[in-house]
Amino acid sequence: MTVPFPLTTYTARLDAVAALLEQQHIDAAVLTPGADLRFLLTSDIDTHERFSALVITPDSRRIIVPGVDAAALRQGIPWQAGVEVVPWNDGEDAPALAVGDLPADATIAVSGEMPANHLLNLQARGLSTVNATAVLRDVFMVKDTEEIAELRRAGAAIDEVHRQVPGLLSAGRTEREVAEDLERLILAEHVVVDFIIVGSGPHGADPHHDFSDRVIEDGDIVVIDIGGTLDSGYHSDCTRTYIVGPVDAARDDRAEAYRVLHEAQQAGLDAAKPGITAGGLDKVVRDVIDAAGYGRFYTHRTGHGIGLSGHEEPFIIAGNDLPLAEGMAFSIEPGIYIPGDWGARIEDIVVMTADGCEPVNLTTHDLVPAGAAEYRGATA
Amino acid sequence: MTVPFPLTTYTARLDAVAALLEQQHIDAAVLTPGADLRFLLTSDIDTHERFSALVITPDSRRIIVPGVDAAALRQGIPWQAGVEVVPWNDGEDAPALAVGDLPADATIAVSGEMPANHLLNLQARGLSTVNATAVLRDVFMVKDTEEIAELRRAGAAIDEVHRQVPGLLSAGRTEREVAEDLERLILAEHVVVDFIIVGSGPHGADPHHDFSDRVIEDGDIVVIDIGGTLDSGYHSDCTRTYIVGPVDAARDDRAEAYRVLHEAQQAGLDAAKPGITAGGLDKVVRDVIDAAGYGRFYTHRTGHGIGLSGHEEPFIIAGNDLPLAEGMAFSIEPGIYIPGDWGARIEDIVVMTADGCEPVNLTTHDLVPAGAAEYRGATA
Repeated sequence: MTVPFPLTTYTARLDAVAALLEQQHIDAAVLTPGADLRFLLTSDIDTHERFSALVITPDSRRIIVPGVDAAALRQGIPWQAGVEVVPWNDGEDAPALAVGDLPADATIAVSGEMPANHLLNLQARGLSTVNATAVLRDVFMVKDTEEIAELRRAGAAIDEVHRQVPGLLSAGRTEREVAEDLERLILAEHVVVDFIIVGSGPHGADPHHDFSDRVIEDGDIVVIDIGGTLDSGYHSDCTRTYIVGPVDAARDDRAEAYRVLHEAQQAGLDAAKPGITAGGLDKVVRDVIDAAGYGRFYTHRTGHGIGLSGHEEPFIIAGNDLPLAEGMAFSIEPGIYIPGDWGARIEDIVVMTADGCEPVNLTTHDLVPAGAAEYRGATA
Repeated sequence: MTVPFPLTTYTARLDAVAALLEQQHIDAAVLTPGADLRFLLTSDIDTHERFSALVITPDSRRIIVPGVDAAALRQGIPWQAGVEVVPWNDGEDAPALAVGDLPADATIAVSGEMPANHLLNLQARGLSTVNATAVLRDVFMVKDTEEIAELRRAGAAIDEVHRQVPGLLSAGRTEREVAEDLERLILAEHVVVDFIIVGSGPHGADPHHDFSDRVIEDGDIVVIDIGGTLDSGYHSDCTRTYIVGPVDAARDDRAEAYRVLHEAQQAGLDAAKPGITAGGLDKVVRDVIDAAGYGRFYTHRTGHGIGLSGHEEPFIIAGNDLPLAEGMAFSIEPGIYIPGDWGARIEDIVVMTADGCEPVNLTTHDLVPAGAAEYRGATA
């Protein structure tokens, strides 16, 4: 269980879910363990194949759990927030405890993570189902004050790691050695390392590379994409691109492509204002890269939401008509990847404000020179 | 990726799925990463929130994956088995690549693990959906020769650990110390430790206890439930109950309850023959415990399937009308739990044969005396 916010944060969230259900004439939300229960109750229960669900109706909140897990819910925030615990034992019809008292033609909103086994079971009872992530987006996607403070704290934590990267990168070291240093540095600022990408030279062209035994060479461009989890459960995620040696040693074609990438990412930061859609924001960023002739080298979406999950709604991707609203938090992370040669990416997490967006990552977006003649050590 | 069986094992499984679909007039199976893809393709890809699916129709097999994951499928068993790889990039409609060429009123069988996000998306296209675990049970639940050999190997591996438990348990040691020894012993026989339960004294009464700093006392009854994963991906799972000191030192009421438990578990082994239902087998075991007056102390189902997942169908539980068939593998694991006092459980994994069942765990079902005057060491 993560360090919780004050009780009122959670009661406000539960009340907001109930109000949204009422507004949209949905009879109940049926939410399974995972991101939704961490967000609403601070609960990280995992009941594996056994059915569990927090059931919220306009006027009730109860959680259906296997008997062995009941004690974990009868304490902390779930208990303080007055959520009724309904334990069940093997052999009982657990989904009936969740939805048995709803009208036969009820509509329920289910967690996007609910497994088909349980969802098909609920549907077989005649219920209509909608995706809770969509209908409850004003609660799940829009961050409240405490969450935004945590995302800022996460941004500062990963920025502190990036500030030390120039001291880690030098010709002759392997990606793995750098990753081992990064692991230690991330843990100094977070409680969990989420991922580490050290993409040097041609490996920078693979957005999903992690790290290898490749020896970093003088003049390499190196993509460093790192993230971790704070004690509050909130995630950091930030990419910067480095050059081993002086910046003016970058090959002309690379310097030019990096300039375009930088411009595209800045265009995204400038365009991220309430009202633009997620797909529209993706297009703003992509258009800059397309116009410069690099379109076929930008092969992924522009970003993803972040909070108690490392990747969540809103996804900043073509076709997503979701209007971005104040309080939503997501990455803006274009990249240019020249297969077999090199790659670069610039990524910030931003939080939407009333008239724009606030990046939580504040280190330079320039190509960063790294690698003194001599390795300066992880804590340099 | 786990060590694979011969290619013909996988082509036979894919053919069997196609044949079952045709028999049941289902247009396609749409199977997501997890147990289903490990079983059919040896693939353990995890594409997180991005859509992936193995699509099997009576006459085609293709796998839809994000572009970055395509290379992993273009090798090994998926490649050898001729599965077409269909990569997609962010911004494309990936589910359309999976089901776009099916008739508008098609019925598809989906993985029980498929998340609601994807399932609701497929349903919104007008498709009817059924649970693949149910309609493909003859492939997914019935183990083939290679799998049964692996389950026997897993049984032998965990038996080897249980044989060493008497040397680990003695008054004065903590549950945690015993668990640390067990971790090392399980890893000597497996590649992964799945779980370790050391339930001594009153902790034995909690079926989901793991281990604690409780100091084991002379005369304690101790439940040891342990499991691991072999390099082939198959799981072991076995429970034995020990007494710290001589067996005849067990309190009379405990000796009597243990005798009932032993009888109930044996009744389960005797009753597990093709034709009995999963629920019927649960009842046979439960009836013995009920008849002796311990019914309220047996609080969980009798067993769960096992294979490439530690818990899977068939679940041996009241209400499950599934007829048990030759080749199915599952646990028979009744327990008696006296809250705050003590508990006991006996668990074997069995494989159904043509006229009964074969347990893969072969150590004694008796209460096992443990704890020499002096600790004999983990490798005693």
